[in-house]
Amino acid sequence: MLSPNSYLIGRPGSRGELDTPALLIDIEAFERNIAKMAEYARTRRVQLRPHAKTHKSVTIARRQIDAGAVGICCATLGEAEVMVQGGIPGVHITSPQVTVAKIERLIALNKVAPPGLSVVIDHPDNLKALDAAAQRADTRLAVLIDFTAGHGRTGCADADAVVALARAATSARGLALRGIQSYSGNLQHIPQRVERLRRAQEQRDILRRVIQQVRSAGIAVEIVTGAGTGTYDLDGEDGPFTELQVGSYVFMDVDYQRALLDGINTPAFETSLFVSTAVVSANASGYVTTDAGLKCFATDGPVPDVAAGAPAGSLYQFFGDEHGKLILPVGTAKPPIGTRIECVTPHCDPTVNLHDAYHVVRGDMLIDIWPVDARGKR
Amino acid sequence: MLSPNSYLIGRPGSRGELDTPALLIDIEAFERNIAKMAEYARTRRVQLRPHAKTHKSVTIARRQIDAGAVGICCATLGEAEVMVQGGIPGVHITSPQVTVAKIERLIALNKVAPPGLSVVIDHPDNLKALDAAAQRADTRLAVLIDFTAGHGRTGCADADAVVALARAATSARGLALRGIQSYSGNLQHIPQRVERLRRAQEQRDILRRVIQQVRSAGIAVEIVTGAGTGTYDLDGEDGPFTELQVGSYVFMDVDYQRALLDGINTPAFETSLFVSTAVVSANASGYVTTDAGLKCFATDGPVPDVAAGAPAGSLYQFFGDEHGKLILPVGTAKPPIGTRIECVTPHCDPTVNLHDAYHVVRGDMLIDIWPVDARGKR
Repeated sequence: MLSPNSYLIGRPGSRGELDTPALLIDIEAFERNIAKMAEYARTRRVQLRPHAKTHKSVTIARRQIDAGAVGICCATLGEAEVMVQGGIPGVHITSPQVTVAKIERLIALNKVAPPGLSVVIDHPDNLKALDAAAQRADTRLAVLIDFTAGHGRTGCADADAVVALARAATSARGLALRGIQSYSGNLQHIPQRVERLRRAQEQRDILRRVIQQVRSAGIAVEIVTGAGTGTYDLDGEDGPFTELQVGSYVFMDVDYQRALLDGINTPAFETSLFVSTAVVSANASGYVTTDAGLKCFATDGPVPDVAAGAPAGSLYQFFGDEHGKLILPVGTAKPPIGTRIECVTPHCDPTVNLHDAYHVVRGDMLIDIWPVDARGKR
Repeated sequence: MLSPNSYLIGRPGSRGELDTPALLIDIEAFERNIAKMAEYARTRRVQLRPHAKTHKSVTIARRQIDAGAVGICCATLGEAEVMVQGGIPGVHITSPQVTVAKIERLIALNKVAPPGLSVVIDHPDNLKALDAAAQRADTRLAVLIDFTAGHGRTGCADADAVVALARAATSARGLALRGIQSYSGNLQHIPQRVERLRRAQEQRDILRRVIQQVRSAGIAVEIVTGAGTGTYDLDGEDGPFTELQVGSYVFMDVDYQRALLDGINTPAFETSLFVSTAVVSANASGYVTTDAGLKCFATDGPVPDVAAGAPAGSLYQFFGDEHGKLILPVGTAKPPIGTRIECVTPHCDPTVNLHDAYHVVRGDMLIDIWPVDARGKR
């Protein structure tokens, strides 16, 4: 069963009756976020390939495509399999797939995927393995050369390595070179816009020289993909990116709302993702216990913010696997057991990955339930 | 599909060929852990009701029952539903179930569960709601009074509240009072045995007085349940517990192995839970990147320990949602892309909750795949 809440769809007041903890999407804020980013891209003549690692949902990917996105990024092959099965075109896998097991799955996927499936490579051994597997399967796999982009997580370390790999890709009969990926994940959450701006600029200057060097070698670079919600309006301004891999803008979270607070020119994305939790114990002095703990919220960033249902100034603390501690301001009344509290999620991507379903709400009503299709898929 | 690795079952060397990241159980260490705890309980004449929040697996619960456990604890109603559906007897739910939605599900479950289903209560309003729902459904629900036990997460704040609730339970026609729960979750991970011993002793003294007060009111206390892997051999020694809710002992993890290091009298539980991850990028100097990140390991405790596959002294760091950074000791050779690295999980319970399946290995061979049946179930 996807959710024990299906029977509540369409009932007035059902938002406050959900079986908890429940992951919520405020559909109005969510739709405004998708429209705003689409409008930004249209205006700046840059394309969007939003990152599905954030939402892992075919329904949301479809809405992004319908708003003009050219495709969808995936962090894992398992996410890509789910998106392809859901009919999503233009799926790009942003991490190298190097083991025999992953390469077999990837080549099988390439044979059935809608046009535009691509994957990054950052190593000549991986290039050879993918080329051989594609040739054996009589298919051609689109690849982008991954550049480290100052982040150093994956990618070629320098321009020479990018050129060497691009050259090898153009002569590999099983591969089709499409372009370059340069994702500076380390810049997205820098909390001062002026510092993000300076460092993103620096990275774009380096990237321009890399692209120039590849083109000087007579190799076409059609796609340059990168950027995130923290730098999209910097990286989208003056090239060299042809497309943006933005993810978190659809939901926002405590982390991004704080980091982007000083973004004078930033279109304000709204928080659209919440967790509804219930007070389950209220015997202590100064706090109550809720049913949302560290199996419900990501713990790699800040703590959840309390958004509704509790006295203003209430603070959330983790209180074990399945519980949260809601610390109440002095002198406020304790919410009784059963009270629903809504919280902003701390880091949206890994929080979503802890849930099986989105509960889509409009005002006080549950209007739909969407599966987190690619939850846990590797 | 439960796992893309099913085809590898029974193949020699398959442990090193798994599609990654993959959650592993070393079956030999795992079976020794189950046998050791069962032997401890037999010797001390205390019962075991192991906590399924750790493993969320019907297969593992069944093995614990087969080794002599009287039942299984669950932290959520969703876990209890899965265990009941799997035919596990003696399911006890260790957190209060207070919302209308949860009470409806609980009463429905009670009508179909094997004997012994029980739930804790810590509030008179919850007692009345459960009693009324049970009577309406013409069923009788077994309850234990939850005592705060110095932890303060759930439970009655003092002995008077326990007695009042116990008295109300005995006169509620829809309820059957079974005993008291007293779980000191705050003591389990204290890293000095002498300090754990002192504080557990303190809590048992308080608990004895609570039980005495309930019995003085003429109310029978059949079950006293509590304790965990950090205090089982303290709490199991001299009463007042009739049963132990131990969970993590089946797997162990970085956190517990460190906390219990000085346990002179502690039967040494072995690490039986690992994650197999692959090197996916190796272009940087001094480290390589693996495919196991914060959607694969819990982030609420320490970082994973590197157990096998990398040079001795290698250290793991989180490197985003889907990646880890394996920092290599100076002067060691970089493991090439595709190399499998096995890591000890940081905090086992929330790590297991990120995976769909256990890959059961004996030596170098994958011998079975078990589903994490109750993953994400609330």
